[in-house]
Amino acid sequence: MKTNRIEAFSDGVIAVIITIMVLELKVPHEMTVAAAVAVLPSLLVYGLSFLVVAIMWVNHHHFLDTAKRADAPLLWSNNNLLFWMSLIPFVTAFMGQNCAAPFAVAAYGAVLALVSFAFLLLQIVLAKQDAEDGVRQIRYRRLNRKAAFSVALYAISAGLAFVSVYFSFAIFGLIPMLYFWPERELNETLS
Amino acid sequence: MKTNRIEAFSDGVIAVIITIMVLELKVPHEMTVAAAVAVLPSLLVYGLSFLVVAIMWVNHHHFLDTAKRADAPLLWSNNNLLFWMSLIPFVTAFMGQNCAAPFAVAAYGAVLALVSFAFLLLQIVLAKQDAEDGVRQIRYRRLNRKAAFSVALYAISAGLAFVSVYFSFAIFGLIPMLYFWPERELNETLS
Amino acid sequence: MKTNRIEAFSDGVIAVIITIMVLELKVPHEMTVAAAVAVLPSLLVYGLSFLVVAIMWVNHHHFLDTAKRADAPLLWSNNNLLFWMSLIPFVTAFMGQNCAAPFAVAAYGAVLALVSFAFLLLQIVLAKQDAEDGVRQIRYRRLNRKAAFSVALYAISAGLAFVSVYFSFAIFGLIPMLYFWPERELNETLS
Amino acid sequence: MKTNRIEAFSDGVIAVIITIMVLELKVPHEMTVAAAVAVLPSLLVYGLSFLVVAIMWVNHHHFLDTAKRADAPLLWSNNNLLFWMSLIPFVTAFMGQNCAAPFAVAAYGAVLALVSFAFLLLQIVLAKQDAEDGVRQIRYRRLNRKAAFSVALYAISAGLAFVSVYFSFAIFGLIPMLYFWPERELNETLS
Repeated sequence: MKTNRIEAFSDGVIAVIITIMVLELKVPHEMTVAAAVAVLPSLLVYGLSFLVVAIMWVNHHHFLDTAKRADAPLLWSNNNLLFWMSLIPFVTAFMGQNCAAPFAVAAYGAVLALVSFAFLLLQIVLAKQDAEDGVRQIRYRRLNRKAAFSVALYAISAGLAFVSVYFSFAIFGLIPMLYFWPERELNETLS
Repeated sequence: MKTNRIEAFSDGVIAVIITIMVLELKVPHEMTVAAAVAVLPSLLVYGLSFLVVAIMWVNHHHFLDTAKRADAPLLWSNNNLLFWMSLIPFVTAFMGQNCAAPFAVAAYGAVLALVSFAFLLLQIVLAKQDAEDGVRQIRYRRLNRKAAFSVALYAISAGLAFVSVYFSFAIFGLIPMLYFWPERELNETLS
Repeated sequence: MKTNRIEAFSDGVIAVIITIMVLELKVPHEMTVAAAVAVLPSLLVYGLSFLVVAIMWVNHHHFLDTAKRADAPLLWSNNNLLFWMSLIPFVTAFMGQNCAAPFAVAAYGAVLALVSFAFLLLQIVLAKQDAEDGVRQIRYRRLNRKAAFSVALYAISAGLAFVSVYFSFAIFGLIPMLYFWPERELNETLS
Repeated sequence: MKTNRIEAFSDGVIAVIITIMVLELKVPHEMTVAAAVAVLPSLLVYGLSFLVVAIMWVNHHHFLDTAKRADAPLLWSNNNLLFWMSLIPFVTAFMGQNCAAPFAVAAYGAVLALVSFAFLLLQIVLAKQDAEDGVRQIRYRRLNRKAAFSVALYAISAGLAFVSVYFSFAIFGLIPMLYFWPERELNETLS
């Protein structure tokens, strides 16, 4: 198997993940302002998850572009990542329908922490493929610190949901921004 | 990342969007003429949305064929477009089940206005990549005027839904025709 | 646009169509033999539709392999075909849940007649691209006769459903066989 | 048709299969520990099915890499495999919601036995394409014995469900391990 097959399969899975989330938006049955407002939290959570998955797709491609071999560790750290990502539509629907419930917000944070952790594992596998390249190793260490930071933040957001869900929302809004801006730099760093 | 990866991912997302809409068609449970007639509006709205998304897919490819670089502005104006397009199945189900309700019809028009606006943004990003090509710039300006015209028409259709939903339906039927015919010209213009 | 992009998009749409049909199978909630038997018609109809769509996918590829240009007639006769194919999951669910109801069986036959007709249109467009090749024209005429025969059979099956649904089932079972066997010949004929 | 088109279509179908399973996870509506625990079996079954399908995807690619011709036997043994795989989301939802019911557990085992049998048929077709290569034939015979072993184990698990579902679960957990470890060897054997 070549790495481009892993990319193509991952693209397919991520394209389905990012799109089927919209099926969880419940069409309002009454034509009142209250019914429209009731759909708003689901829509906002959907927008957030779309952004998060889109960022992951972009990063995933940057990382896989650097892959040297489609060996078993790469294949299975990638499948592991896709598994945790595939739970995003589930927690998106859960939090969208219960966005004031600490448990639902904590579940969303916990799944994103696990996805970030799966990303960290994938990066470690890719770094090992490049073990003899000293310059890259330094850069990978920085990327890994950043990924570990995301894992920690999402884990904290899951815990904070039981104090106040607004703390969690603040962290959910903050992390995409962290990833969004330095992307250009990431691009230059790795390609 | 290369532009063909953006195309492949967009193709995947659009293929899922255009197909999952059919899941929102509710199978009638009674075998009466009334039950069959009740499904008709949903079917017609589904047909309209299929046509709209198919046109968008065709235009999307014409535009991305001209892309020079897969840089961050292109990547994110494209992800932005896919996000708004992904709401089409939602408003299709909403209007299909409530096609006499001004609010549902306005929501359909509003989402299509936002999709058209996202297309306009993508075209502006692509035009900037071609900034030194004078002939292309003139053509892009014409394409942008046309896109801005669509945004305006869809926005008007959303407002008119509260006067009479038939005005909105007339606009929904008109815009695909506008795009459909000059496609060959568009093709020659850009490729 | 190149013909391979049409193929890739069609592949994506057909892959989603053939797979989402399974979502319409309702999981039985009681663990009785009666509940298991109640799911059987849906399963059989799903199997039939899977076979029909798989045959269409195979034929679609054989046809598109002969395409010379991705012009507007090809693009839109293909989008037209994908639209009617996208209704197959809907009528599959409908007939699966009401397989003794003439109306549901007729709807299934009618949609497959329309899909076959869309295939005929696509073949006519492809034949025109090959207009100067005399040998191919003779072969296309034979293929078109066969497609027209399918359209007629499916249309008859829709009508016969109101006499007895078993006539319709016989036709639904017969047509895949007609297509299945001479496929090798088709392959040799066109490639 | 070339073998890479079969791969691309299979990738699309498998990507949809592996992802839509998550739609069957029912979002809990009450925020109690009991409701969260009630979702756990579905989640675990989903995780198991994701692992099973991911292994199948990996094996599928290893096998198709060795394909010589995209002839009718290959095409239809592959479509046959995809059909049985497409039932995995159905039995995953069924067993996930009724994981103590022997009938649901047996259905899961039976479908996986049929999928494994479809894999065996595909391998036999591929082995025939390589009929003159003596070394490969010996290896194929070993792979076929292994596939036949899976068929037998899954069939036994279906039967044992009526004695105790825990026997079945033990087999469901054992088989992925059998496939997981020797993958590297498989890779070397065939490529």
